[in-house]
This record gives sequence, structure tokens and C-alpha cells, in this order.
Amino acid sequence: MNKYTQAALSVSGKLPLTMRAAVMPKPGSIEIRELPVPQVGDHEVLVKIMAVGVCGSDLHYYEHGRVGRFIVEQPIILGHECAGLIVAIGDKVTQASIGDRVAVEPGVTCGHCRACKAGRYNLCPDVQFLATPPVDGAFVQYLAIREDMVFRIPDHLSYEEAALNEPFSVGIHAAKRTRLQAGETVAIMGMGPVGLMAVAAAKSYGAARIMVTDLEEVRLQAAMRLGATHAVNIRNEDALEAIRQWTDGAGVDVAWETAGSPQALQSALYSLRRGGRLAIIGLPAQDQIPLDVPFIADSEIDIYGIFRYANTYSKGVEFLASENVDSSVLITDRYPLAETREALERAIHNKSGSLKVIVYPNE
Amino acid sequence: MNKYTQAALSVSGKLPLTMRAAVMPKPGSIEIRELPVPQVGDHEVLVKIMAVGVCGSDLHYYEHGRVGRFIVEQPIILGHECAGLIVAIGDKVTQASIGDRVAVEPGVTCGHCRACKAGRYNLCPDVQFLATPPVDGAFVQYLAIREDMVFRIPDHLSYEEAALNEPFSVGIHAAKRTRLQAGETVAIMGMGPVGLMAVAAAKSYGAARIMVTDLEEVRLQAAMRLGATHAVNIRNEDALEAIRQWTDGAGVDVAWETAGSPQALQSALYSLRRGGRLAIIGLPAQDQIPLDVPFIADSEIDIYGIFRYANTYSKGVEFLASENVDSSVLITDRYPLAETREALERAIHNKSGSLKVIVYPNE
Amino acid sequence: MNKYTQAALSVSGKLPLTMRAAVMPKPGSIEIRELPVPQVGDHEVLVKIMAVGVCGSDLHYYEHGRVGRFIVEQPIILGHECAGLIVAIGDKVTQASIGDRVAVEPGVTCGHCRACKAGRYNLCPDVQFLATPPVDGAFVQYLAIREDMVFRIPDHLSYEEAALNEPFSVGIHAAKRTRLQAGETVAIMGMGPVGLMAVAAAKSYGAARIMVTDLEEVRLQAAMRLGATHAVNIRNEDALEAIRQWTDGAGVDVAWETAGSPQALQSALYSLRRGGRLAIIGLPAQDQIPLDVPFIADSEIDIYGIFRYANTYSKGVEFLASENVDSSVLITDRYPLAETREALERAIHNKSGSLKVIVYPNE
Amino acid sequence: MNKYTQAALSVSGKLPLTMRAAVMPKPGSIEIRELPVPQVGDHEVLVKIMAVGVCGSDLHYYEHGRVGRFIVEQPIILGHECAGLIVAIGDKVTQASIGDRVAVEPGVTCGHCRACKAGRYNLCPDVQFLATPPVDGAFVQYLAIREDMVFRIPDHLSYEEAALNEPFSVGIHAAKRTRLQAGETVAIMGMGPVGLMAVAAAKSYGAARIMVTDLEEVRLQAAMRLGATHAVNIRNEDALEAIRQWTDGAGVDVAWETAGSPQALQSALYSLRRGGRLAIIGLPAQDQIPLDVPFIADSEIDIYGIFRYANTYSKGVEFLASENVDSSVLITDRYPLAETREALERAIHNKSGSLKVIVYPNE
Repeated sequence: MNKYTQAALSVSGKLPLTMRAAVMPKPGSIEIRELPVPQVGDHEVLVKIMAVGVCGSDLHYYEHGRVGRFIVEQPIILGHECAGLIVAIGDKVTQASIGDRVAVEPGVTCGHCRACKAGRYNLCPDVQFLATPPVDGAFVQYLAIREDMVFRIPDHLSYEEAALNEPFSVGIHAAKRTRLQAGETVAIMGMGPVGLMAVAAAKSYGAARIMVTDLEEVRLQAAMRLGATHAVNIRNEDALEAIRQWTDGAGVDVAWETAGSPQALQSALYSLRRGGRLAIIGLPAQDQIPLDVPFIADSEIDIYGIFRYANTYSKGVEFLASENVDSSVLITDRYPLAETREALERAIHNKSGSLKVIVYPNE
Repeated sequence: MNKYTQAALSVSGKLPLTMRAAVMPKPGSIEIRELPVPQVGDHEVLVKIMAVGVCGSDLHYYEHGRVGRFIVEQPIILGHECAGLIVAIGDKVTQASIGDRVAVEPGVTCGHCRACKAGRYNLCPDVQFLATPPVDGAFVQYLAIREDMVFRIPDHLSYEEAALNEPFSVGIHAAKRTRLQAGETVAIMGMGPVGLMAVAAAKSYGAARIMVTDLEEVRLQAAMRLGATHAVNIRNEDALEAIRQWTDGAGVDVAWETAGSPQALQSALYSLRRGGRLAIIGLPAQDQIPLDVPFIADSEIDIYGIFRYANTYSKGVEFLASENVDSSVLITDRYPLAETREALERAIHNKSGSLKVIVYPNE
Repeated sequence: MNKYTQAALSVSGKLPLTMRAAVMPKPGSIEIRELPVPQVGDHEVLVKIMAVGVCGSDLHYYEHGRVGRFIVEQPIILGHECAGLIVAIGDKVTQASIGDRVAVEPGVTCGHCRACKAGRYNLCPDVQFLATPPVDGAFVQYLAIREDMVFRIPDHLSYEEAALNEPFSVGIHAAKRTRLQAGETVAIMGMGPVGLMAVAAAKSYGAARIMVTDLEEVRLQAAMRLGATHAVNIRNEDALEAIRQWTDGAGVDVAWETAGSPQALQSALYSLRRGGRLAIIGLPAQDQIPLDVPFIADSEIDIYGIFRYANTYSKGVEFLASENVDSSVLITDRYPLAETREALERAIHNKSGSLKVIVYPNE
Repeated sequence: MNKYTQAALSVSGKLPLTMRAAVMPKPGSIEIRELPVPQVGDHEVLVKIMAVGVCGSDLHYYEHGRVGRFIVEQPIILGHECAGLIVAIGDKVTQASIGDRVAVEPGVTCGHCRACKAGRYNLCPDVQFLATPPVDGAFVQYLAIREDMVFRIPDHLSYEEAALNEPFSVGIHAAKRTRLQAGETVAIMGMGPVGLMAVAAAKSYGAARIMVTDLEEVRLQAAMRLGATHAVNIRNEDALEAIRQWTDGAGVDVAWETAGSPQALQSALYSLRRGGRLAIIGLPAQDQIPLDVPFIADSEIDIYGIFRYANTYSKGVEFLASENVDSSVLITDRYPLAETREALERAIHNKSGSLKVIVYPNE
């Protein structure tokens, strides 16, 4: 499988020695620089990056220089929702091959800490997560990453859809954490990219009815195309009232808050039937949010915090490759690597129209 | 087993026709009245009540005439933590016998609703719960109840300890809901009777270390006798600081808040390790409590509301009958039925000294 | 809702006083008899039975007079997979209404035993299950049953499809017991009606690939229409070999044996990946089946026995009413009540061609 | 923490350059050889081995040259149940320190495969397990192992007891896999070292009653000292009959078979109540064992294969260090490293008297 080393491939001209990368020297600025193509380690593969989604966290680093406890203190390359083609592999790689089209899981975990050993590797304290300071990300032409972080995609799945496996994973993880069962009813608050892919996750898990809320009509329409069965525009309607009505007053089995809005979180909580389950996915701007604690106790609500995801990538590829999920409805804007700055600005300034902006480093 | 009917037993003088009961005609007042001994239904047993614990909800009805959505609108008999002797059984009773010493589970559920069928009968909307308006309770000499609500206790277990199976059940339910595993670490906030029995539950489940907090030294000492391994008096010490130190900075696996205090709830939350689990047992006076939502998400905390209990009673009897639990340390005050009013007043006015006040209707 | 009592409806001529029933006086014989229409109890509804599926257990009682520990010792009415129209309701019925079209769950459980309280009511020792000696079944024009046993169906779902909710429930229960997750791979052995509906259950739960085996081409074709993605006719091919190949040698996540065949059970076991889960649904003719115990241990297989189902009916109605499940492919033969005997004989003697035979008591 | 490198420690005379090891050149023979002390890798610690338990698998390799799919094809060092003192650490070690007394988990897993990532690292296909061909084991004076494989033990816990954490882990894993809950009843078949430590595990998990079976009185007595509440010598009594009697005919909640005996496995199965759970721990000599499949289905039994353990070591240390477990009752024979051969022979030829034989490499 591994006939030619990366060095040999480079010498033969099949692999370049340098590549372009969109570097953020400091918040608010992007420069295209020429950097060496990274050398793969023994257990790594070299991925020619074909598509990278712009994520809210990229925008946050670009605008504010930080996300929660992570602070930009030196130049960094953003971008972590990516997919590409394997063009070289390390000497000890056994599961991946040159020529594989792959989705890339961006968090390289240690494998040996308590969290990793318990199967909750998203809580690994030593994770190296793409585009999370000080780790560089995927707005590059080539990326070297450990072989267990890449997941083969079928030919009919595009790279840009495969890049969506990252936000999709958050929804899949929420489905697993809240033990969403086929035939159950779900309310999902907030139809940004994470919320929209959460709709796709709920549909993939066989949810019977999926009720969604947002302020923007275009997002609600995208949600309906992804599998939502009821949509409420909270500019015009009371979300809680609508959900109660759709469930004959019973409330939903499961609710997911993805917007980071205190009001949406409270609606999500009150939308639940007794014994219902709530996932907190969106991060609100302030820390302390008032929650109805007697209601939580009296109704025996379960609340689950959601931080990234674990063991979702192969599942996500299965779902994306099936007929169930048409994730292409999310992709509204496309830019080459040279225009990464424009891509970020577009995502920031067209919040009501742009759903997912994709950067193509090798076009 | 069922040689003599209740009618025959009454005629023969083995059972009286009337009994004394401590009736609350309106909040703040208790009268001892002579009432007919209840007739058992086909599937019921008649329990001669030997011990009844005074619960915080009894005090709340007595002082304020309501607990949450339940309001006292007519005379009611309080008391629901009880145990006694079966003295008559209905014609179709198959599992219980005259002469059985039993703990009484106070919530008679319908058995046919969605919650009951799913094994979460504590969420049954049609439950008839002793001493919850408009259902009368156990400050009486005889109580008729469906046979599946009584649980045989061994000879060496006293009636007053068996009555404690009710608050104990809340702790056992919390252990089940939070999936407490042997060898884990637990923090329990608030050492009232429910908190103290929760300590006993955590010990019965094999918790490795049990850290408790309260304001009253006498309660902390009782907690240590029930199995707590570390106690912090929050008058003098910071609970969170102490727990962090006891766990080498890692935080606990599981935390239970039983005090209904917003501060204790926040301490409980922050005392958790990443991936930790929190049970909300105590009901705060106000509805909206600020909780650190980004922390919940980032640390992937699970939060479980606790409402009463389900499927805990036989387990509780096993634990109480073992050498592991010395629940007698809770029982600080004893009154005959005639002094039920004094029992309630004692429980109200000696909060720092009295742990559990017991009423003995047949002494 | 309950304006007219059953008595009033009968007097007014809206309900007949007698009805036809297909009675089995002894195994091997069916007689159509005129019987009184049953009187509903306080909590019961009267269902005009519109469709009844013929089940393998009906055939077994008809041919052999027994199924396992249940023995026919007196005349009995068979049939338990049924749906119909509510035409009268008892005085205390609150959840059902005259005019409701409903699927009928055939096992009336006690609601008060340990199994019922724990949410596993299928293990209730006192269940009254239709067409299980000595309880009469559904080959009748009218059936009285407790209101919590009926589940409203939408207008677009036919009675005959609703009757299939019974075998469907077995598959749904297997999915729940084996914790089948969306995106997983499943092998299902045996494509009789239970196996076929299990395919529909696996699809409803979002299984990524569903591999099925049988001896009959017609059944395999029906399976493909219900959502199977790979079919192997074990007359021509080795099931295990095929499954290994379809999974690149890894084995499936979950396997369900529905045929009651020792060989199929062994194939199901060996088809699993390490850590895989097996459900035993089919009952083999002999008791002791050799299983590879070292393999079970070494591969950490989970094996789950399946007995009927619990808490599946409303879920099943949701799935049947969705576009995902086209259960009509199962229905191959239709008979009026007068020809119940012919229906049973057809099911017995056309095993290769008939999938599900339906009896229509009111046509 | 890491002031001196291993090289420096060796040069200073604080660490020897060579050590003694008990090598098995071929099955049936043991030679004490002088070997270099291993060099620690960056993430490894050097453990001065203080106690090693002789395991049944060691005996099997010694007598038969194979265990299942693992075959001795070259000289090997046996022994994998061990504990010792950290005397050197690699440059990148962060969690362990020189001077730590530790129990050693013997299976070094990859951390990156599907099984590892899902938290079931015992199913890792690339595990390097001590004393499993071709990996050398612990009958040596010094062992280098990755730092995450060692678990600090408290001062009052002896090395020989800490070595028992290995067989103990199997019982803990069985408790986790079968979801053993406090207050439940357990039957454990076979009181070899694994069975005995399984008794300690069941007690640590709060089992209400623990019923054990064996042929040897001395083992049954040890079981009673470890927490068993009922013992049956199957030479004289029928195990199933006794268990039924002890449970008033109901059967136990959970049964664990540790003997590898087909009869014991069948007894374990039949000893279960409906809905009960069975763990298969012991490996029988033959592959195909007849099991009552209709019983499994009809009673909805869960069966769980057990292969080694995962995430049990820190829990095990907690239990061993508590007052609950007196594992010293297992240790019947003690040998220095020079007499490793005698230790193995003793374990082989005194099956009725010897429970656990311990080798002390540094005495």
C-alpha cells in the first residue's frame, strides 16, 4: 500500500515541497503564506485538503481572539471542519491508503488518560484540536494527522458535505447523550449550522417529529428540507405554545438548545414532558442563566451538557452517504483559499442569509 | 392465610371498630378524633401503624397549607413515612399475611399510565400519595392500603427504622438516577433527614468517599456515623474548596443537593469533575436559580431532577436490615399520637437539634 | 365523550346483542358460534374488530394444542394481532372515545407486580394475554379490553396494517433490548412475519445496513422492500460468509435470530463483531442448543432473550404511519371470519408463499 | 519529580544494570536468567516488582504451551498479576513518581482503535498483554511499562494484595457488565481465585446476598470470609435447589460462572429469576456447550461474555484499601523468584489447598 515515501513522492514531483496557508497573524487579519508541506509522522497521513467549513468558533477567534478558556496569543491557522484526499502516509500506517477520500476528525486525543480510556475522549485534557490555540488548523493545502482521525467516504459523497460531518457530529453526540430513540419527539432550538445538522441527526435516529425554532425564515426552510416536521419563527410565534400544541399538551421527549440563548434554553426546558431530556449545546454569552430548578426536580428532567463529540465520525459518514440527509442545503457560499478572509467576513456579515461558508484550499 | 375477614375479626373483638387519628382541620391546628377503622378492599391490607416519621412536607402543610402545586383545601390527616403490623387482609390478597411486620410505601400508583408502564411510576399523574391533598395520611392507628405497597421487614428491624425507608428511598432513587457506582466519590449537600439517609444510600452503593456539608455540627456528626468520610461545616469552611482538596483537585464523580439552597446547588455543580453527575433533590424556595450553563456544557455535566422514588422499597429494607446502615442515629424525638401537634412543633422549632421526630400511633 | 352507555347503545340498535366468533372447541377444529357481545367494564372499551392477523402461535395451538408451557384444555378463541373501531366505552374511561380507530395490545398486565413496576410488564406473571389459554382471543366481532391497551391510529393507516403492530412490536422490543443505534449494522435471521417486521423495526431505528437470511426467495424479496440492504438465500449461499464479506470481515454490530433454527442462531452468533449484541427471538423446537461459549466470552458478546414486548405500541403506530414502513407487503391472504378455519389452513400449508394471513371479522 | 534519569541512577549504583528473570524456555521448564534491566521509554516507568500472583493462564502456558488462540512459540517470561515500586521514570512521564508504590495493569492498549476509543479497550486488537505470547511478563525484578498502566496504592495495602487487583478486576468488570446493583442477589459458581475475588467485587458493589458454589470446602470457607452469605458444596448438595430455596423460589438477580464448567454454567442460567443477568467468565475446555435457548428467551435473560476488564484498576485499589475486602485470605503460598518453578508446580498439584501462590522477585 505504502510503496512510496513522502520524501520520494516529493522528489518525484508528485508532491510539492511548499503549500499555501491562510494564516491569522493576529485577530481580524488573514494572510496567505507559503509554508513547507508538513512531514507525516510514522502513524500519520498527509491529507490534501479539499473543503473546509467556516465555523462559529473560527469567527470568534477572528473577531475576538478567544473562545472561552482558549486565547489566541500567536499567529494561528484557523479552520477545522475539513475533508480531503490522502496523498502520502507514514511508515507505520495500516488502516489508510494513498488515494482515500476522507473526512477528518479534528481532535487528536491522547488515548491514555482516564477520559480516553472510558470512551469519553472529548473530555481528554491533552487533546490537540485543530484551530484551537495553539494548534494550527485546516485552512491549508496539506495537513498531516494521525491515521485514526481520518474516515473514508464513499465516492458519491462530496468533500464539502464530508466537511459537514464536524457540526453533524455535535448533533449525533447530542442524540447519543440524550438517548434519543426512534419514534420520539424532539424540539431543537436555533437553526444555525449546528442546529440544522442536529435536525439531520434527529432524523437519522428516527425521531418521529422534529420541531424547530429560529428567527430567520431561510434557516427554518432549510430545517424543513433536512427533516424538521414543524417550524416556528419566534419573531411571530411563541415557541413553547406551539410545541405544547403540536404535542397535545404533553411536551416533547427530548429538547436540544443550540442557539446559546437563555430564552431558548428556558423554552427548551419547559417544552419537555415529565421525564424528558434536555441537551445544552449552545454556549450563552453570560455564565449564569436562571433555570427553573423546582420544575427540573418535580418533572424529573435530565439535563446533559454537550462538549464536542466522541465516536461519531463513522456514524456521521454513514448518515451523510445515505438518502436520508441532504446536507448540501447548508452550503450557501464558496471561496478559494486565497479569499479565506472574504469567506470569514461573509460568514460574519451575512448571518441571516449564509448558512455554511466553505473554503476550497486546492481550487 | 386469610382465615378470618376483617368483619369477623372486628366482631370477635380482635379488631376495634374505631380508631384515633390526628386530623389537621386547617393549617396550624391538629385535633385527635375518633374515626371508623377503614375497611380493606379486596386487594388491600389493614396496617396497624406503629411508627410514623414527621417529614418536612408535613411541616410545610401544617405551617403554610401547601407544598408546590398541592394545596390543603379541607381537613387532612398528615404523615406518610410509616411502618406497622398487618392485622387484616382483603379477600384477594395473595402476597401479604396477617402478622407481617411491614414498611409502607405511601404512593399508590395506577399501574396503567405511560409512566407506570415505563417503570417510572413516581411520575404517574394519578398517584394517590398519603398526606398529599386530598389524600389522608398515616397519623392514624389503622391504615388500609393496596397489598403491593407493603414490604415485609425482618424481626430485628424496628418499626421506627422501617419508617425511615421513605426518606431513604429518595437517596436510593438518587443513587439509581445518577448511576452511582461502587468506588466512586460523592458530595452530598445538606444533612437534614433526606441528606442523612442519602449518605446511607451512598454507602450502601459502595461509594468510596462521601463528603458532606451542613451548617449544624450535630447533623455532620450523624452523617459521619452513617458513613460520610469527610464533613465540612459551611459556617467555617468553603465547601467547594474542601471538596477540591479532598479529591486532589479532580472533583467528585457525583454530587447530590438535598438542602434546597441555591448556594449549595452551585457548590454541588462546581464540585464535579468533568463528566460528573448532579442530582437535584432539595426544592429551593424560589423558582429561578442561576446555574453556570457554559460550565455544564464544557464539562459535559449530567443533571438529574429527583421526584420521590420508584422501585426502591425492597432494596431499602435490605439495606436497613444489614449491618451497613445504623439509621437509629436519626431518631431524636418520640411522641405518642395524642401529641402529634407537639411532634410537629418540635420538628419546626428545634431545627438544629432534632433530626427525625417519630410519632407512635399505637403506644 | 361517553354520552351513551353500552346498554343504551344496544337498546337503540346501534350495538348488537350477539356476535359471531370463531371458536376452537379442540385443536384442529374451528366452529363459528353466536355469542353475546361482551359487556365493557368501567375501565374498558368495546372494540369492533376489523382485522386480525394469523400468528404462528395460533397455528401451533390449532395443530398441537400447546405452545411451551401454555396448553389448550378447553374451547378457546384464537387470534391476538388485531385492530378495530371503538364502539362503546366504560363509565370510567378517560383516554379513549367512541369512534377511535385503534390498534389493540393483547396482553393485559396487572400493573402492580415487581415486573410491572420495573417497566418490564411483559414479564408480569399475571398477564391476561389474548388467545393464550385460558384467555380468549380476537377472532370475534367485538372485544372488550382495558382502555390502556388500545392505541389510536391515524386515518391513513389501515386496520390490517395496524394489526401488524403486534409482530412489529417484537422487532421494536428487540431493537430496544439490543440497544440498536442509528448507523449500526444488523443481521436478521429468518424472514417469517416476525423477521420481516424486525427488518422494518431496524430500518425505523436507523440501521445503516440490514442483512437478512431465509430459505424462501419471496420472503427475501419482501425483506428488501421493507428496508433490508442485503439478502442471502441460505439454500445457495453461506450466511456467515456473506455477512463477513459485506462487513469487510468485521462482523455486524447486532444480530437477531427470529427463525428458531439452531443453525441460524449459531450463524447469528458468529456473524457478530467483538462486543456485538445478539437477540434470541425465535423459539427452537428443542431446548438445549450448543453455543460457542468461549467465543461468547472472548468476544464479549451480549445475548438478550426476547419475550413479547413492552412499551412498544405507540412507537409502532408512529413507525407504521410514517413513510418508512410499507407493511402492506406482508399481507398475502385475506379471509372473512366465517373462513377462519381456511385462513389457518392456508397459513399452515402455504408456508413458502403466504406471509401474513388476515381475518376480517366484520366483513 | 524526575530529577535523575535511569541512566544516572544506574551509574550512581542506585539501579542495577542487570536483573534476574524466570524464563520459560519451553513449556514445562523454568530457568532463572540474568537479563539487562529494561530501559524506560519516554512515557514509561520502571517498576521494581515486589509481588506476582500465579494465574491459571500461567499454568496453562507452562503445562500446555497455549491458551486458546495464544501459542508459546519462543522463550517467554510468565506472570502478569503484579505490583511494585517505581524506581525510575521516563522523560515525559507526568503522572507517576519515583517512590510510588503501584499496582500494575498488565494490558498495554493502543488507545486509537475503535474499541479503545469506545471505552472497551479490553477488546483492542493490538493490546500488548504481559505473559501473553509473544509479550514477556512479570516474573522479573524490574519491568518497564507505560505510565498509565500503574496505579498508586496506599501505604497500608501490601504489594501481594495489590497484585490481586488483577483477578479482582475480572470480578469488577463482571459487576459492571451485568449492571449489578446494591441490594441485589448474586450467585457465583466456582471459588477459584477469580471466583473468590468476584465475591469481593459483589460485596464491594453492595450485593445483598452472595451465594457461592464449589467442590472444595477450603474455598467455600474463604468465600464466606470474603463476603459470601451462603455456600454450597456441590459434592453434597444441588446448587440450583439450594439457590431456589435461599431465594424463596424466585431465583437470583445476577449469576456469574467462573469455573468454566458446563454444569455450573447451566446451574447459573437456571438459578436466575425472570429478567436476570448472567456473566460468562470461566472458559470451558470444549467450545460448544448446550444452553436452554427457549428458557433464555422466555425468561428474557441477559448473557454477557467477559474478557479481561477495562477501567477497573483504580476502583479495585479503592476496594482493596477499604475495610470491606480482606483479600489476604487468598494468599496461601509464597516463593522467591528463584523458586518460580516450584511456585508453578505447587499451584498445579495442590489445587484443593492452594488458592493463590505469590512469587516475590525482590526478596
